[in-house]
Amino acid sequence: METNQKLILVTNDDSVNAKGIQSLVKIASTLGTVVVVAPNKPQSGMGHAITLNDPIRLNRVAMFGEVEAYASSGTPVDCVKLAIYEVLHRKPDLVLSGINHGENSSTNVLYSGTMSAAIEGAMEGLPSIGFSLSTYSDEADFMQYEEFISKLISSALENEFPAYTCLNVNIPNLPAKEIKGIQICTQAHAFWADRFDKREDQFGRTYYWLTGEFGEVNPREDSDLHALNEGYISVVPTQFDLTNYRVLDHLKSWNL
Amino acid sequence: METNQKLILVTNDDSVNAKGIQSLVKIASTLGTVVVVAPNKPQSGMGHAITLNDPIRLNRVAMFGEVEAYASSGTPVDCVKLAIYEVLHRKPDLVLSGINHGENSSTNVLYSGTMSAAIEGAMEGLPSIGFSLSTYSDEADFMQYEEFISKLISSALENEFPAYTCLNVNIPNLPAKEIKGIQICTQAHAFWADRFDKREDQFGRTYYWLTGEFGEVNPREDSDLHALNEGYISVVPTQFDLTNYRVLDHLKSWNL
Repeated sequence: METNQKLILVTNDDSVNAKGIQSLVKIASTLGTVVVVAPNKPQSGMGHAITLNDPIRLNRVAMFGEVEAYASSGTPVDCVKLAIYEVLHRKPDLVLSGINHGENSSTNVLYSGTMSAAIEGAMEGLPSIGFSLSTYSDEADFMQYEEFISKLISSALENEFPAYTCLNVNIPNLPAKEIKGIQICTQAHAFWADRFDKREDQFGRTYYWLTGEFGEVNPREDSDLHALNEGYISVVPTQFDLTNYRVLDHLKSWNL
Repeated sequence: METNQKLILVTNDDSVNAKGIQSLVKIASTLGTVVVVAPNKPQSGMGHAITLNDPIRLNRVAMFGEVEAYASSGTPVDCVKLAIYEVLHRKPDLVLSGINHGENSSTNVLYSGTMSAAIEGAMEGLPSIGFSLSTYSDEADFMQYEEFISKLISSALENEFPAYTCLNVNIPNLPAKEIKGIQICTQAHAFWADRFDKREDQFGRTYYWLTGEFGEVNPREDSDLHALNEGYISVVPTQFDLTNYRVLDHLKSWNL
């Protein structure tokens, strides 16, 4: 490890075996020294879950060639904690999460293991970026977006990174040459109009399978969903202070 | 079900078998018609996780006496979705989550299954409150706080509830008569200085167990941690728009 190189931690929620993290490691390795600590199995939709009541395993893995890499039985957030406190024993210069197979725009940021890992990086006071591509296809070519992703990583390393904030980067499912550019956005107010498929197992017992339709509430021109629909890569600065400051005075009027 | 009664959904993350939800159901039942949909096993630290890749089970359970109740194999957030779309087939007037065994103040809101269920309620556009008590003791007497909890629930039903917001209520681990009152607060900026216990299993293989010390960064007098330390119940209005609006212009100056 060259001491003048930036130390970049890479994680994700689709596991060390996913195509998206392979591409992110490849791209990040041209910009710094990469260490990978990522889940050993898919952890999509894990949100900001941590493992409180079970032991966590951590094993060296070889699928990233010369890059030092570990697979963990923990959640994406566990991986960030393990990386800092048990693998690196110091804070990296940058935390990258992804590239996620599937979009994490708008309120999906809350369900996303990819973004929760980036938010955990921000909670540790580290510059952090989560990357997601708007397709679940196994055939997706992540490397075609290398120029955009390199630019974002370089900019994060070179500029003053906003404190206690991470970036939620979503790439539309378009050929790279059709992407119009990168836009700084706000988190769209959208939500899943959830439905469950109600099915029967082989014993006649009911089970449910989560599905749903995604819709934007109060569409805004500065939202990440709008940017993606227009063919731009969206970048939302994302924080972990959830206080709704605008309603503090109203609540005080309840005279609790 | 009397039609003029308010419909109150109760859930939690400690499972239908926890003492905390028993107390919350008892208190809420004096203020409306309660339906329970909660996990069938403990789900502490699950954050905003949802079950994407597995079937979800939902079974009627009897431990709440005459109150209609269901236990689900899903996460707390799954429970809120299942309740609305598969059990009630309509939106309840109020979503209550808890009473959690353990504090969910400050940034713990992100890790908490209890609070994620309340946030999911807010995402569905519903008045929602998460309750937590600052102790893990099985001996805790939740019912002693009935007056405070009833007051909060009544106020939520009677007043204009802030849109797309839920309340994060934490009760200090004090005898009820020593509690000084209820304070409207901001989310403290605190975090876990995480450590892992590194242990060996019976085969000599390493495993990790998450532990840590909790510390406040930039202590503030209006924070929930401060209120709890002073002997007050803290109430933080909590939203799901994570955009850090203050840094949008700075990021635009990166010229991405």
